[in-house]
Amino acid sequence: MQKMLVPVAVALALALTCAGVDAQPAANAATATKPAPTMDQILAASKPSDWRPLNPDDTLYMDLPAGRVVIELDPAYAPLHAQNIRTLARQHYWDDLAILRVQDGFVTQWGDPAAEAKHPAHPPRSLGAAKATIAPEFERDSPANLPFIHLPDGDVYAPEVGFSNGFPVARDPQTGKTWLVHCYGMVGAGRDNTPDSGPGTELYAVIGQAPRQLDRNIALVGRVVQGMQYLSSLPRGNGPMGFYNNPAHQTKILRVRLASELPPSQRMHLEVLRTDTPTFAALVESRRDRSDAWYLYKVGKIDICNVPLPVRKTPAEKR
Amino acid sequence: MQKMLVPVAVALALALTCAGVDAQPAANAATATKPAPTMDQILAASKPSDWRPLNPDDTLYMDLPAGRVVIELDPAYAPLHAQNIRTLARQHYWDDLAILRVQDGFVTQWGDPAAEAKHPAHPPRSLGAAKATIAPEFERDSPANLPFIHLPDGDVYAPEVGFSNGFPVARDPQTGKTWLVHCYGMVGAGRDNTPDSGPGTELYAVIGQAPRQLDRNIALVGRVVQGMQYLSSLPRGNGPMGFYNNPAHQTKILRVRLASELPPSQRMHLEVLRTDTPTFAALVESRRDRSDAWYLYKVGKIDICNVPLPVRKTPAEKR
Repeated sequence: MQKMLVPVAVALALALTCAGVDAQPAANAATATKPAPTMDQILAASKPSDWRPLNPDDTLYMDLPAGRVVIELDPAYAPLHAQNIRTLARQHYWDDLAILRVQDGFVTQWGDPAAEAKHPAHPPRSLGAAKATIAPEFERDSPANLPFIHLPDGDVYAPEVGFSNGFPVARDPQTGKTWLVHCYGMVGAGRDNTPDSGPGTELYAVIGQAPRQLDRNIALVGRVVQGMQYLSSLPRGNGPMGFYNNPAHQTKILRVRLASELPPSQRMHLEVLRTDTPTFAALVESRRDRSDAWYLYKVGKIDICNVPLPVRKTPAEKR
Repeated sequence: MQKMLVPVAVALALALTCAGVDAQPAANAATATKPAPTMDQILAASKPSDWRPLNPDDTLYMDLPAGRVVIELDPAYAPLHAQNIRTLARQHYWDDLAILRVQDGFVTQWGDPAAEAKHPAHPPRSLGAAKATIAPEFERDSPANLPFIHLPDGDVYAPEVGFSNGFPVARDPQTGKTWLVHCYGMVGAGRDNTPDSGPGTELYAVIGQAPRQLDRNIALVGRVVQGMQYLSSLPRGNGPMGFYNNPAHQTKILRVRLASELPPSQRMHLEVLRTDTPTFAALVESRRDRSDAWYLYKVGKIDICNVPLPVRKTPAEKR
């Protein structure tokens, strides 16, 4: 009895992880002549050039009481939003503002509580040099200068899905448009009913099942690359749609900084796996067909939002 | 400036919710002659017979320090597991055991810390009359007595998806098999590498993007119908795969009770929307094509794991 229960936990832990070490690679159904490496083995064998350092001008550090959330902006798909968000960050716009909303299985959203509360004695914070409206950046002409790494397994919501410069994207060959998609950890700019009303002052991160119905309806601006748990494990708001009925329950934002604002000695050294590399292609294959001994049924397919996008500390020799 | 920021939050709140009231239904693209009702309007117009009360023999109350999690077992798809879990619950097996693992974007898992710790002085808790192994219930012959409510939009992982008696399922017409699928909030029985090694002592709930690669590899046994936030907002484990390095960080389970163990006066009165009703079909349509004014682009499709499965308090006249 004891022995049975111990391996339940340990083996499940190994089998279910996104980062577990698998000591016994099994034969891959697709290439039965070779043992299929696991994701960890693929990452361990990666080359330095497989990784791309985060650009300090595209990297936000949001410090919450529990820890730091690191966000990578995507100026390729939301250049105007990225620029406005940089302006807001340099003005320290979000310092002492708050997490306004945590709706279970959906989004965590942050911004200015005064904009929410509408109390005449407490006007919203000034946007300073930042813009109050921005042209919608919900999709763009498919970029010729960025590779589209196609996922072969189809998608419920879009004609084609894949990866572009480290971000999950979808595209429509008929319209020639490509757009970022709402996977777990993606960050977007809340907006009103008018398309230009989301200037990036109020941002949200996806904390549940990918709400793909939002694709092409709102500007995604980047993704959380570290510290996602500090957004996903917050107490859910007790009001409608996860807003906090009592402002005292809102989590305070200590500060948000653009990495490039800080002296190099205070910047974090993080890099993301390039999605236009053979290493990433092998990673996707390792997740489509799991070689872990635990898997009895190998589906051989994967959803765009189930593909891990690895992040690591930049090795000292690359800094 | 103030006015702009206020509607950003308020309108986004209305637009993004699963339960928002939409005062201005727009024309549905598919039936342009009639205004399309929202999900809330559809639920408000539902008949008492559209709802099915939870069976007290299939309902677990798991009390955590923060609140109660209510789980509905699914004996149609996992009868042996449901029976073993009932036996364990009646023995109060989980009382004072713990949440062992919270892996961000993946699962929260609970069971016996002693089974995990392997300390010779602290043997695991006895299973009593419950079984230590159970034949795998990863799929079943497609049931003739349960309707399969087909979703028309396809699926990355399975040939067909839909709903069966209130649960999300997939099926393969070629094999004649149907199985429960790993959507947000689904509950399963952790297992070792052998297929019969998951007796339901250690359970997990999905707290992130649907890990559909687990489908047909492990027994799903039910779903969380209330209190999901008490599982999804727990602190993430700091060890590998979200296990807690320090057992002191584990969340204690106060008690788990089968509703039928309790006197009727202490039972909760909950009912779920029947998925074999025109009301549910209308709900699915309302989510495939959003009529909310906020949506500029209506995709007209939905993933199986994005369809809400409503739960409500049983009206007093039905008790």
